[in-house]
Amino acid sequence: MNDKNKIGQRFLNDTFKVIMEEVLSKGADVKEKVCEWRDPAELRRLLDLELLEDGQPHDHLLQQVKEMVKYSVKTNHPRFYNQLRFLTEALNTSQYTYEVAPVFVLMEDVVLSKLRSLVGWSDGDGIFCPGGSVSNIYAMNLARYRAFPQVKLKGLWSVPRLAVFTSEEGHYSICKAASMQGIGLENVFLGAVPFLVSATSGTTIHGAFDPLDLIADICEKYGLWMLLGGGGSVLFSKKHRHLMKGIERADSMTWNPHKMLLTGLQCSAFLLKDTTDLLKHCHCANVTYLFQKDKFYDVSFDTGDKSIQCGHKVDCLKLWLMWKAVGTRGLEERVDKAFFYTRYLVQEMKKKEGFQLQPQFMNVCFWFIPPSLRGKQNSDYYQERLSKVAPAIKERMVRQGSMMIGYQPQAGRVNFFPMIVHSPQISEQDVHFLLNEIERLGGDL
Amino acid sequence: MNDKNKIGQRFLNDTFKVIMEEVLSKGADVKEKVCEWRDPAELRRLLDLELLEDGQPHDHLLQQVKEMVKYSVKTNHPRFYNQLRFLTEALNTSQYTYEVAPVFVLMEDVVLSKLRSLVGWSDGDGIFCPGGSVSNIYAMNLARYRAFPQVKLKGLWSVPRLAVFTSEEGHYSICKAASMQGIGLENVFLGAVPFLVSATSGTTIHGAFDPLDLIADICEKYGLWMLLGGGGSVLFSKKHRHLMKGIERADSMTWNPHKMLLTGLQCSAFLLKDTTDLLKHCHCANVTYLFQKDKFYDVSFDTGDKSIQCGHKVDCLKLWLMWKAVGTRGLEERVDKAFFYTRYLVQEMKKKEGFQLQPQFMNVCFWFIPPSLRGKQNSDYYQERLSKVAPAIKERMVRQGSMMIGYQPQAGRVNFFPMIVHSPQISEQDVHFLLNEIERLGGDL
Repeated sequence: MNDKNKIGQRFLNDTFKVIMEEVLSKGADVKEKVCEWRDPAELRRLLDLELLEDGQPHDHLLQQVKEMVKYSVKTNHPRFYNQLRFLTEALNTSQYTYEVAPVFVLMEDVVLSKLRSLVGWSDGDGIFCPGGSVSNIYAMNLARYRAFPQVKLKGLWSVPRLAVFTSEEGHYSICKAASMQGIGLENVFLGAVPFLVSATSGTTIHGAFDPLDLIADICEKYGLWMLLGGGGSVLFSKKHRHLMKGIERADSMTWNPHKMLLTGLQCSAFLLKDTTDLLKHCHCANVTYLFQKDKFYDVSFDTGDKSIQCGHKVDCLKLWLMWKAVGTRGLEERVDKAFFYTRYLVQEMKKKEGFQLQPQFMNVCFWFIPPSLRGKQNSDYYQERLSKVAPAIKERMVRQGSMMIGYQPQAGRVNFFPMIVHSPQISEQDVHFLLNEIERLGGDL
Repeated sequence: MNDKNKIGQRFLNDTFKVIMEEVLSKGADVKEKVCEWRDPAELRRLLDLELLEDGQPHDHLLQQVKEMVKYSVKTNHPRFYNQLRFLTEALNTSQYTYEVAPVFVLMEDVVLSKLRSLVGWSDGDGIFCPGGSVSNIYAMNLARYRAFPQVKLKGLWSVPRLAVFTSEEGHYSICKAASMQGIGLENVFLGAVPFLVSATSGTTIHGAFDPLDLIADICEKYGLWMLLGGGGSVLFSKKHRHLMKGIERADSMTWNPHKMLLTGLQCSAFLLKDTTDLLKHCHCANVTYLFQKDKFYDVSFDTGDKSIQCGHKVDCLKLWLMWKAVGTRGLEERVDKAFFYTRYLVQEMKKKEGFQLQPQFMNVCFWFIPPSLRGKQNSDYYQERLSKVAPAIKERMVRQGSMMIGYQPQAGRVNFFPMIVHSPQISEQDVHFLLNEIERLGGDL
């Protein structure tokens, strides 16, 4: 190894130390701040982001790495198996033919088929996508292709106006997909020839589950594609999978192990029940320089043309390794634990005076009512002032770096906190910390 | 730290050792095989891919990691700075609001603006995408939106039939995008109302550069969106950037630093000249739970709604760190070196009897003519037999693990090798190894 490489290797070793100490150990320590907050202008001054004509020396770069870590939001918890995603980066593999990614073509096949069997499909297809929004784009494209294959060649002008159905609380990626695919936002809720119904298990805000069997009845009756988004990981739980009863009747499923299972970003599977190679027929461009037919092995293992990209990252490894490490049973325990602590949070919240809960689904949506507003719910100013409580608590929380929870208004309800319990490391203590911290931050509002 | 975490941490340390030794050091050693080839069925037997009810012990997992590395294609060369992409994995950040990714929102801004200035745009917009194909999808969607904003709401039925222009050798992602977006493949080359011309700098196979100024003249005259794909990294080279003369007249640019600059997958920027916030207007869904207007900081730093996903990975870090480490000058040297060795390869190839070159662009496309076919170019069987030479050499190459080059037929030309020289580690020796190895593998055909 030459000198340049030795220097590079030392730098990589030093950086790995920073990653281990600052990102993984400290980042997972509940006594450390979630984020060292700085306003954009100040942060720009603190970091040396400028790109120069000349390269920078080792020590300066390492210092930059430390600064970067310091001012980034710590997303880590002590879940070290997930860190094996380093391996995907080290291998730097893109997945499109068997030749370039033999291990991962086989691994993806195993993981997808295991996920499908949890859905209840003995056969089918699927692919890992760069996130759930892209999975939903896939589903909409396949649904359209199944209903009107001529769109691939002749465009939407060759078919009647199409319509997509979803619920008010469905994920906004459905709207993005409809506009991207030339269907138009105004055709998402109403009119014309329906071809797709988008159902959700675990809506983004409330974590509500659509009645899948009822939706499937309608889809079957009218021949519509039933797209199911979210909730997949609940299927690991024998205790809770009834929430998704009827799921095996869906046509496709968007499943994000990087959410509830925390596999590390990105890890998102698109699954489908179809066995007619729709994924390939709909997306293939049959380029000759990657997908030659005169190869010396079975080219059905060259799965790249199923993708809307060319290659896709070997994201299956993240889920595979976690699954291999803790087993199906371990994943089930995590999901059950999330449900347990969600209920525990609700139970403890009910014991306190200042918390007002919304109707309960998988997520805990609530307002904190500061002492100054308690018992004033009939006064003129109540809603107006309550709407300012969550943003004010959030600002203090971020500036002090103690927690990271979002807030939002919805359907006439003023700003509230939607709380999702996922981490396999959560404890009773964390639940009490959360409640006490909100009381501390918002007590004087 | 509890016991479970200590075990996890030890596992991570052990895996890091495997990454350093097996993936990065051995993987970069030219004496090691590129890939330990196994047929799909055999590889499935060799690997323990099955996912079980129970988790697996540490040692077994580590063994699996080693097997995985062994049978994966080694994409690494001794370019250790790139390995800093571990940091993006460790931080596990998704980029959509300033709160969740303060460092990377600012960093992306710096990198995109630096890339734009190389293009020649003093202002504009942009975003990092999961690969170049997705960047092209972005461009097509924005072009359509600029020409016919009503498509976002009313769909394609509200506008005349649209047409996209590209060259025969343009990247197939344009076709994928057109079919995905409901425009239809048959509208890619001909007819109706044109709204987009797709130009390419460095075509996939030959590395040919479209005449950008001539294309820009036509686009300006008819008000068409000029999408430019590829070639971006050539702009670092003062010596070679003339190949892209006229680039500043394009409307958007798809730039993949993970190709010529080898930053590690994925790292792909979509750049645009527009200053009217088109990226946001075209893609926004204005969801309230992420992009609240009543935040305590300047929400123009919450860039997530520009994306067709929600968050995107902090891929800008990979390019930023490499750029910071070697400087603009260092990147220029790499590009110049790639051109130098491309020419060197051509020069050395011309000295040999058995190599026949195609017209020369950035990539070196050639046939190897085995001794048995030399001087027989007028015989009936020549093309037929020549078409089998590249696949046969490729099979031997893969099975022996000595190199990894693709082959392909194109436009009436039988199977040939398209060779791209990118690695900053390449030497005269490597060029001679390549030529000798092809002679060795194909000498008896």
